[in-house]
Amino acid sequence: MKVYLTRRYWISASHRLHNPEFTAEQNRATYGKCNNPHGHGHNYAVEVTVSGEVDGSTGMVCNLVDLDDCVRQYVVEAFDHQDLNHATEFRELVPTTENLAIVIFNILKPRFTAAHLDKVRIEETSNNSFEYAGGAEPGH
Amino acid sequence: MKVYLTRRYWISASHRLHNPEFTAEQNRATYGKCNNPHGHGHNYAVEVTVSGEVDGSTGMVCNLVDLDDCVRQYVVEAFDHQDLNHATEFRELVPTTENLAIVIFNILKPRFTAAHLDKVRIEETSNNSFEYAGGAEPGH
Amino acid sequence: MKVYLTRRYWISASHRLHNPEFTAEQNRATYGKCNNPHGHGHNYAVEVTVSGEVDGSTGMVCNLVDLDDCVRQYVVEAFDHQDLNHATEFRELVPTTENLAIVIFNILKPRFTAAHLDKVRIEETSNNSFEYAGGAEPGH
Amino acid sequence: MKVYLTRRYWISASHRLHNPEFTAEQNRATYGKCNNPHGHGHNYAVEVTVSGEVDGSTGMVCNLVDLDDCVRQYVVEAFDHQDLNHATEFRELVPTTENLAIVIFNILKPRFTAAHLDKVRIEETSNNSFEYAGGAEPGH
Amino acid sequence: MKVYLTRRYWISASHRLHNPEFTAEQNRATYGKCNNPHGHGHNYAVEVTVSGEVDGSTGMVCNLVDLDDCVRQYVVEAFDHQDLNHATEFRELVPTTENLAIVIFNILKPRFTAAHLDKVRIEETSNNSFEYAGGAEPGH
Amino acid sequence: MKVYLTRRYWISASHRLHNPEFTAEQNRATYGKCNNPHGHGHNYAVEVTVSGEVDGSTGMVCNLVDLDDCVRQYVVEAFDHQDLNHATEFRELVPTTENLAIVIFNILKPRFTAAHLDKVRIEETSNNSFEYAGGAEPGH
Repeated sequence: MKVYLTRRYWISASHRLHNPEFTAEQNRATYGKCNNPHGHGHNYAVEVTVSGEVDGSTGMVCNLVDLDDCVRQYVVEAFDHQDLNHATEFRELVPTTENLAIVIFNILKPRFTAAHLDKVRIEETSNNSFEYAGGAEPGH
Repeated sequence: MKVYLTRRYWISASHRLHNPEFTAEQNRATYGKCNNPHGHGHNYAVEVTVSGEVDGSTGMVCNLVDLDDCVRQYVVEAFDHQDLNHATEFRELVPTTENLAIVIFNILKPRFTAAHLDKVRIEETSNNSFEYAGGAEPGH
Repeated sequence: MKVYLTRRYWISASHRLHNPEFTAEQNRATYGKCNNPHGHGHNYAVEVTVSGEVDGSTGMVCNLVDLDDCVRQYVVEAFDHQDLNHATEFRELVPTTENLAIVIFNILKPRFTAAHLDKVRIEETSNNSFEYAGGAEPGH
Repeated sequence: MKVYLTRRYWISASHRLHNPEFTAEQNRATYGKCNNPHGHGHNYAVEVTVSGEVDGSTGMVCNLVDLDDCVRQYVVEAFDHQDLNHATEFRELVPTTENLAIVIFNILKPRFTAAHLDKVRIEETSNNSFEYAGGAEPGH
Repeated sequence: MKVYLTRRYWISASHRLHNPEFTAEQNRATYGKCNNPHGHGHNYAVEVTVSGEVDGSTGMVCNLVDLDDCVRQYVVEAFDHQDLNHATEFRELVPTTENLAIVIFNILKPRFTAAHLDKVRIEETSNNSFEYAGGAEPGH
Repeated sequence: MKVYLTRRYWISASHRLHNPEFTAEQNRATYGKCNNPHGHGHNYAVEVTVSGEVDGSTGMVCNLVDLDDCVRQYVVEAFDHQDLNHATEFRELVPTTENLAIVIFNILKPRFTAAHLDKVRIEETSNNSFEYAGGAEPGH
């Protein structure tokens, strides 16, 4: 009776894809227009999937209010209406959406314990999405 | 050559989250505004995923007409434009969307046999979804 | 330099289409399954359109925070996670989505004055919408 | 036989709402988190509506290829994957979406002449949109 | 108390844009890949908007069941899962979506009389739409 | 640190479901209106999912530009604005969406090697999708 529950949050943020260890030419070749000097932005849809047994008395896997509180406090608060390149997490990490998915997963993993965290999926645009289901440290 | 096929159905229904064994205070603490006395409602998008080998002569896993007939007869007919709390299945089960996913999966499992039933996923709102891929009896 | 601004709010509510002055047969003939005795529900997307000149110093028609405050206080608070048939506004008015659009327009008209209220459009399901741009009293 | 034709383009851009003539406090009061120092971003859906008589031999109002060429050259090229605050058009204009709609309308008006330009509508997020149908100069 | 009601129907059809009076070169120049010899296809979303006073006893502009019956009988039946080029209406008319909007409007105008037919809007793809609100005969 | 990346492409194509080895009656019984003689069409949304380790210096699984180049050259070029029944791949294969998913997966598998190809998912309409994650030859 394991049920998976997915909830979507929105983050409007800017980023610039740029690796300071690359030459200007390497950066341009790797990131194209995403390397434009002043950055650009997206409405990121962040989908968090958790799972667990359905509780026989409440009929719920966990309380969505708790999930909302956790994601809003540690993720939305940190990244919404911000420039990702200035966030602590991206000081030494290129803010690609791959890395953003890993970072958000790693933020939530130890903090949300009312159900099992399965994956974080981010839609960067309506045509692109990135999904991370756990593993080692981001970007190394 | 196993292909997964997903088809979406819509159910406009009302429900009230309320466990008669809880105190009024427990119900309010557990379900919040979903415990409002006269109920509320949703357009539930019910996605049914089945799978199987692609038949070499028809090029199909199964006939969608058969899947439609089965889901419409046993699921849409039972829950669309209804109040879930008054449905037989929810007499002793809180009509959370977790339980609705389990109930629909268990209704379809023995009745649709033209392909393997993989999962039932329900979008309760554009930001919430619940998915069940089989297991034991609902809510116990 | 008049700009139109539209903002979408969500209301999950239940309703039953039923006119107490009709016979049971008339109610069934008029409303079909929407007349089912225990009601059913929808996720209503309520789109509010306002317009005005763009302010030269702020670059805005009005502050969205003010529009949000007004709609949340007087509309979302009143109808979200409620049964429309029990709301004061629908004591003597059938809670069709036509009437809901008129009721919401008439609630907002005197209360939101920072810009011109143009219309209220409600999506009842992904295939149905209703739009009201002002006029006389609802339902008479 | 006048037909309206609407085509959607996408711009991923960043912006910061900030009026240099306001105090820090005024900026924060007016723009809230949209005034965050390093900016943030959106996927803007830009819908351009043009209209005209349907040509009896082609069956078209105008050639979409021509509309695409014009919008891509003068709008997408200028703003996609850019920071709006650094664009020439926003040197003395706060890059609100109201102003972006006016700016894009005014860019297209003299350049697209194969059909009548009716309006520019921009979705900033899935819940917010802004529409401009012509008038005087932007932001004054 | 005039309310506008919009309902969406779906038509999966194929078409080839080709004017037999044009040379092969003219057809290719005018229609590009839409002129490919064997045709191609779309899921057309057909939105029909009607309006009228809200009836004081039913709370409705008109019965959606009647609108559905009319659109399904005269429009969906005629064009869904068909090749537009083989439909009677397009024997001497290029099946552009402009013309399809006009044709559908003209089919419905005399047949649906329970409310005022305001317009027909067709989404050809998620990025293209065409809208017709009445006028003279199609394509001449 | 394995990340899954999904990218959506669009194909507007026509097809007719018809097996020349079936009788007319068998074809009609199997495919219903999809067997209509002149074909019909869809906007197919083709989602390609690839995965791999995130590169520590670029922060990417692979370059989306490379994936786009490959899918556009071998898939979009081959099927967009075409009639599937006339494509080489469907000369002896019924162009169901099940088979289209298998064909596209098998086209991409040997050609895109910058990341692991996980699956191809095709939305035929907003309510139907088909997914293939690899296996043997299509349709045999």
